[in-house]
Amino acid sequence: MLNFEYCNKTKIIFGKGTENQVGKETALYAKRVLLHHSGGSSVRYGLIDSVKLILKEAGIEWIELSGVLPNPRLSLVKEGVDIVKNEKLEFILAVGAVNDGNLWDFFERKRTTDKALPVGTILTIPAAGSESSISCVITNEEGPWKRGMTNPCIRPVFSILNPELTYTLPPYQTACGITDMMAHIMERYFTKEPNVEFTDELCEGALRTIIRNARKIFNGGESNYDARAEIMWAGAVAHNGLLDTGRSGDWASHALAHEPSALFDLAHGAALAIIFPAWIKYNVKEGTPRFARFAEKVWGVDGAFYDCEQAAMEGVFRMENFFRSIGMPVRLADANIDPARIPEMARRVVHFGPIGNYRKLEEKDAEAIYKLAML
Amino acid sequence: MLNFEYCNKTKIIFGKGTENQVGKETALYAKRVLLHHSGGSSVRYGLIDSVKLILKEAGIEWIELSGVLPNPRLSLVKEGVDIVKNEKLEFILAVGAVNDGNLWDFFERKRTTDKALPVGTILTIPAAGSESSISCVITNEEGPWKRGMTNPCIRPVFSILNPELTYTLPPYQTACGITDMMAHIMERYFTKEPNVEFTDELCEGALRTIIRNARKIFNGGESNYDARAEIMWAGAVAHNGLLDTGRSGDWASHALAHEPSALFDLAHGAALAIIFPAWIKYNVKEGTPRFARFAEKVWGVDGAFYDCEQAAMEGVFRMENFFRSIGMPVRLADANIDPARIPEMARRVVHFGPIGNYRKLEEKDAEAIYKLAML
Repeated sequence: MLNFEYCNKTKIIFGKGTENQVGKETALYAKRVLLHHSGGSSVRYGLIDSVKLILKEAGIEWIELSGVLPNPRLSLVKEGVDIVKNEKLEFILAVGAVNDGNLWDFFERKRTTDKALPVGTILTIPAAGSESSISCVITNEEGPWKRGMTNPCIRPVFSILNPELTYTLPPYQTACGITDMMAHIMERYFTKEPNVEFTDELCEGALRTIIRNARKIFNGGESNYDARAEIMWAGAVAHNGLLDTGRSGDWASHALAHEPSALFDLAHGAALAIIFPAWIKYNVKEGTPRFARFAEKVWGVDGAFYDCEQAAMEGVFRMENFFRSIGMPVRLADANIDPARIPEMARRVVHFGPIGNYRKLEEKDAEAIYKLAML
Repeated sequence: MLNFEYCNKTKIIFGKGTENQVGKETALYAKRVLLHHSGGSSVRYGLIDSVKLILKEAGIEWIELSGVLPNPRLSLVKEGVDIVKNEKLEFILAVGAVNDGNLWDFFERKRTTDKALPVGTILTIPAAGSESSISCVITNEEGPWKRGMTNPCIRPVFSILNPELTYTLPPYQTACGITDMMAHIMERYFTKEPNVEFTDELCEGALRTIIRNARKIFNGGESNYDARAEIMWAGAVAHNGLLDTGRSGDWASHALAHEPSALFDLAHGAALAIIFPAWIKYNVKEGTPRFARFAEKVWGVDGAFYDCEQAAMEGVFRMENFFRSIGMPVRLADANIDPARIPEMARRVVHFGPIGNYRKLEEKDAEAIYKLAML
């Protein structure tokens, strides 16, 4: 087990009706805030109106910035930064999105910071884990480039998670979120660090919980509170740092998935459903026992001791079938991505150097994985 | 799943040599501190000398208070409070113990507070989970009474966990610690709240990890870093609040175990190894499916679908065998406790009212459980 530090100060407020606490929690930090949201379903279903009423009752003023999209854009971040500076706002309340207010230099690792405005969130799509993580991902339209960054100072001070607010998510968004949180766990799970039994157990338990409850949601359980709650809480823990402790994650699949998202605006979760099976297939000989364990503990594959590689591959097939069952693409072709663009994606993904920790991947590896994602 | 709030601000610093960071971390809070420790093995093995050197290098002054015992006494707490007040100390550095500095009124629920001196800890026995919990337990020699209290303000600001520091623990202390952390998980696991799948999975994974690694330690692995590390980290997470989220714990077994500890100074872990099997036996008909699931997921019992009660009981027997294998008593007689004292223990344990949430226990129930712990 690797040495580690772990501290997660986000206050999670979880459950039915918890959005009513947003005024009280925000008032601990500021009286004038940026209210940031998509302007889409959160307005349509009345959440933004409720939030405004609650803020008003708590004596909090706000300036509104809407327009958050899947694959959030740098231009909108810049707009938010300008508003915050000009209006001297002290807090960002993000409904359905988290905006850290940093600029592109941070994403190219040219600059870092230890200060950020405090952010509070009301989560509306369990997926990114931004509600208690130190990560964010932005698409720079100039390029286009999609890049992530991590910094402890962007972790939200509070996050409100009400599973009821996720009943109205379209199935595609629900499925993308489920795939994203599973990918967050798998990026951490696939490590070459030995002796990480406790976090292995936590990862496997989280994955099983997500898979079981995803099946409930996709079999008539759109408004099943408990299934939505299991997914929402597991998705937050998936990315809150606990499952990282004592091990090093991989993250090549995230990098590989960012390319089709940046170039073709493919939703992040959908891109991961295509890339992750291909990444495992490419690496299965590299660490067969761990992939076989994954197949057994997460996908219920038996017989790992007879032929570990076969067991591992059976796990991948079951994972693909699961993704298909919730409406995710599992091949680049399913997302109408032209195989002719593979060399370009492979070149772009290693633009800042090799990717991945489980196994360092160069351009030729990336190309091979994209090709496996075509077959 | 129940609504919940979750926030754990303790900074965990985990791994080899991490005690060297104690000066830097303490300096963030104070320049004059109370250095609180047992005066026993932490001195004998040189840890206290190392800590003093590190504090000195960081320009931190300390006043020492030693004498922490298993089942920590109220009189020592009072002594610590006096020193802190007279010397105007601003921080408590607890090596091998956590001292919250509150007095008996807090334990009788007559008084509460939202202020406490910041506490940092260097953990030397993975057991109580105090390194990142909001709980503490004190024995008041007048009575004697052993009672716990919880308060978010006593959660340590940092805790240093170096598994190497646990190599020298006597086997009995190691076993008591393992039993205590398993009991912390089981108190949370046995709930009547339905739809708590994610936290069930986390609890089961933590228990399996502890059991597997305990076997390694007790089969020649006293200095097995990774086994000690798995136990140490699982023991911290066992009691850091995560495994509570969305469910209500029971805690009757802790109350029942406090009586033989208070009256006969039996170590807390040993008392739990005696009480928990008896508590399950008493309750097995009350919620057979959960106890059967526990038997299957934690103890590998098969056949739960044929006869759930039999499966549940088989789980209890395996748990008893496990406790025996690490040198724990599993009957009151093993700890030389006279059955004639059972009525007295049963009367005392309900002194403040019925105990337990899974099932409210009155004096007669307590007496029946103590009797089951004799058989």
